Amino acid sequence: MKEDKILLAHGSGGTQMHELINEFILKKLTNSVLSELKDSAVLEIDGKKIAFTTDSYVINPIFFNGGDIGKLAVCGTINDLSAVGAKPLYISLSLILEEGFEKESLEKIVESIKKVSEEEGVLVVTGDTKVVDKGKGDKIFINTSGIGIIENKVELSYSRIKKGDKVLINGGIAEHGSSILNERLNLKLSNPPISDCKPLWKIVEEVLKISDKIKFMRDPTRGGIASTLNEIVSKSGLGIELYEKNIPVKENVLGICELLGLDPLYIANEGKMLFIVGEKDAEKVLKRLREIGERDSQIIGEVISEPKRVLLKTFSGGRRIVDPLSGEPLPRIC
Amino acid sequence: MKEDKILLAHGSGGTQMHELINEFILKKLTNSVLSELKDSAVLEIDGKKIAFTTDSYVINPIFFNGGDIGKLAVCGTINDLSAVGAKPLYISLSLILEEGFEKESLEKIVESIKKVSEEEGVLVVTGDTKVVDKGKGDKIFINTSGIGIIENKVELSYSRIKKGDKVLINGGIAEHGSSILNERLNLKLSNPPISDCKPLWKIVEEVLKISDKIKFMRDPTRGGIASTLNEIVSKSGLGIELYEKNIPVKENVLGICELLGLDPLYIANEGKMLFIVGEKDAEKVLKRLREIGERDSQIIGEVISEPKRVLLKTFSGGRRIVDPLSGEPLPRIC
Repeated sequence: MKEDKILLAHGSGGTQMHELINEFILKKLTNSVLSELKDSAVLEIDGKKIAFTTDSYVINPIFFNGGDIGKLAVCGTINDLSAVGAKPLYISLSLILEEGFEKESLEKIVESIKKVSEEEGVLVVTGDTKVVDKGKGDKIFINTSGIGIIENKVELSYSRIKKGDKVLINGGIAEHGSSILNERLNLKLSNPPISDCKPLWKIVEEVLKISDKIKFMRDPTRGGIASTLNEIVSKSGLGIELYEKNIPVKENVLGICELLGLDPLYIANEGKMLFIVGEKDAEKVLKRLREIGERDSQIIGEVISEPKRVLLKTFSGGRRIVDPLSGEPLPRIC
Repeated sequence: MKEDKILLAHGSGGTQMHELINEFILKKLTNSVLSELKDSAVLEIDGKKIAFTTDSYVINPIFFNGGDIGKLAVCGTINDLSAVGAKPLYISLSLILEEGFEKESLEKIVESIKKVSEEEGVLVVTGDTKVVDKGKGDKIFINTSGIGIIENKVELSYSRIKKGDKVLINGGIAEHGSSILNERLNLKLSNPPISDCKPLWKIVEEVLKISDKIKFMRDPTRGGIASTLNEIVSKSGLGIELYEKNIPVKENVLGICELLGLDPLYIANEGKMLFIVGEKDAEKVLKRLREIGERDSQIIGEVISEPKRVLLKTFSGGRRIVDPLSGEPLPRIC
């Protein structure tokens, strides 16, 4: 019975979501751009390389430590464009409001959108507002779609990834997910996690400037770095070995994960980018990331030829397989 | 008390919606593109004129006589691009599914999306899927955003509209709204209205081909032709006189409107375009519209200098003012 219905796990970023998308969407709508399943579609319009992306945000709660649904939406769209090397230019803003939602909250959310979009030089150019009856929505859902331009000779593709390439990240993992979890469970921690929600274009731009060996990027949101790295493995036909000792996790984040029995590898980030970088440039890129303020940046792993899995080399020196996410640890995280 | 909260009327396409958008969104996010409030934003990217639009669809019911939420979403986005003279190229597809939604219904909806996008040569290139807990959504909400290209010397703007220009429409009004109303009230009519939901680009393309006096276009969805024409009046600083006898309304549509005391001028369309055409070309455009299958096309009015209102010249020869929509005759119509 249950298999005929949509489950929360179908929105998790894990295997069930991929199965649903493959079976119900890609099989029907397939075309060469869509089936790449990148963070943004890369389109050629009259010789210009344009990136196009969309995301709907259904996060609960809508206000959290480190941001709100408005900031999250704009950052998410900026980051999806950044991941394909596109400078974010234009954003659309579509609101689904629940009848009875407080205008004061709407005002705060639009204020956040204004702040981050202005700081990033991104224009909100088109929009839409719908209202649904009380009990048929949940306060506010936001869709932002974005357009960016890929200006230079940026070339990011799974096919450029080779054995020996390094995996970099610009700071601590699992901060967004653990912050949301803390809000939801009302844990009253003395040092609660803060969502890492932030725009990444300026960071990406710097990295692309100093190295032509950035082979692939992806922001590990739903499903955490485990899910994103598993996707890279499945598309590139290579494996990835992670060094547990190098993976940055803040203490308060680790604390809440241990308390609740969650693995931070699977918990969402909203201000992190995974970079796959040619071995020769890895240290240079790491240094630059730290110079521009991403002080907790690390080389967290490398590309291997076999096995074609994500492996974790643990503190104790053992190796374990990091499987793709199955089920739903944390619904409505973004 | 109530004024602090979002009402269904804030999604109606009428005055309350415009007030909300003006006060809470435009005041904060204003820029020259957004404040035009056209159906699509028109952007210049490296010398190319690109149109960009977004819409979320929250229609209830999701299946109706003449279409479903999937067809509606793709057509709506195609039509918003068409209204600014842009050839629709790419569409994004973002789903918000309610836990427990039947996969079979999802399959039918994606099938509709496939059908209409293939027929129109539009590619779905990027997407997103979110799931919300049961009771926090309503089956399925869809956001489609779209990108189109404005290829020729198309120039559509309020400032081109002049006294004496004619107002054309490509067929009967109020068909979408009355069809949805019929579904919702389960009226068991022997000859129920059918939604006019359809893509309009091919029609618009033909019209733009044969006349350079197409001064403005807009598809009159929420709030019907009354709301769209009132917006044109308020932006152009001119008035519009409608000829009631020329406004095409199918008998079954008129029947349901009379039964329920609704004015078809305020009821949503999803396959109609209003064209403001220079007087000299109006008959030529009308002829072409009829030739290409839009047999019920009509010249339904003209631009006047005073009063700066929408007037209706009635069957009996009198004149009455057609005010902007206030309140919400029909929530969740699209």
